[in-house]
Amino acid sequence: MPYIQLNENLPGITGLLDYRLDTALPIRQLTQMLLRGESTLTEGERELVATVVSHGNNCSFCTAAHTAAANAFLSDPLIAEQVKTDITTAAISEKMKALLTIAKTVGKSGRLVTPEMVQTARDQGATDRELHDTVLIAALFSFYNRYVDGLATVTPEDPAFYNRLGSILQKKGYLPSEDRYAGLV
Amino acid sequence: MPYIQLNENLPGITGLLDYRLDTALPIRQLTQMLLRGESTLTEGERELVATVVSHGNNCSFCTAAHTAAANAFLSDPLIAEQVKTDITTAAISEKMKALLTIAKTVGKSGRLVTPEMVQTARDQGATDRELHDTVLIAALFSFYNRYVDGLATVTPEDPAFYNRLGSILQKKGYLPSEDRYAGLV
Repeated sequence: MPYIQLNENLPGITGLLDYRLDTALPIRQLTQMLLRGESTLTEGERELVATVVSHGNNCSFCTAAHTAAANAFLSDPLIAEQVKTDITTAAISEKMKALLTIAKTVGKSGRLVTPEMVQTARDQGATDRELHDTVLIAALFSFYNRYVDGLATVTPEDPAFYNRLGSILQKKGYLPSEDRYAGLV
Repeated sequence: MPYIQLNENLPGITGLLDYRLDTALPIRQLTQMLLRGESTLTEGERELVATVVSHGNNCSFCTAAHTAAANAFLSDPLIAEQVKTDITTAAISEKMKALLTIAKTVGKSGRLVTPEMVQTARDQGATDRELHDTVLIAALFSFYNRYVDGLATVTPEDPAFYNRLGSILQKKGYLPSEDRYAGLV
């Protein structure tokens, strides 16, 4: 049971974004810009950043939600599982391996990112902007993970819930809409 | 030296918010709402949340900046130092001790917050909204800490820098303005 009174039909982050709509708006806008805005990283690659960070921070709701969102964008549903198990052997580019390694590290602490990690990413072609956005997305999901778990929000167990949520995140993105979560639970 | 090319006159978070202005805007807006918007917690109390979380996450820039901002609001400059050393013996209300304990815990992991911590805060009069906002501010500064350190931004050593920044954060808040950081460095 959550530590504060939330709409029972809105589990995980959805109830928190419904609890305080004024703060929810910039959170949603920032997420939309970073995960759906213009970028040399694909939407699927950026959802993988969200997935590995949430997984590293043991946030079950966020991990399941962004695994589903990544799967909605990527052709191979094994990739999200692979990056959670072992980034180095996943079927992704060497550049994405280096960026996901940095992202997962940021999820633990920004201070743990090393010049060597950054150089490895640069050697694989990562740009300043890609490094910046990877760190910013990783920081953003470290934020979400703490918000969701720090208030003990509900984590649905039915995998179908996350498939519906992943589909919404793929088709509609992160900005608010009236009927956003209709039929989610 | 930062891992990406930033304006050398803008250390810490200031250079990052200048690097990508589109993402900076919702970050600034969220911070302004949470730390300066309407609340039953004072601005000084909310800056203390930012301070203990940044200190717990070993982010030197954020800790010094929000210590200075807290000092700009609080009458006693010892309080910010006290909460960094030991929340339980600091010269603050029992409610703030309970909320800062939750905040510091969220900085580590949301999963470490216990029902007992929440009950202690409720016993001291904390409301749902105060609990929510404390967790959200703690999550936000866990974000800032990772953004600032994950890209190895510069941390000025001169205490006067942070006094100037704390004064700006007190007088102007977090929203963008043309001359925001003029004369900061």
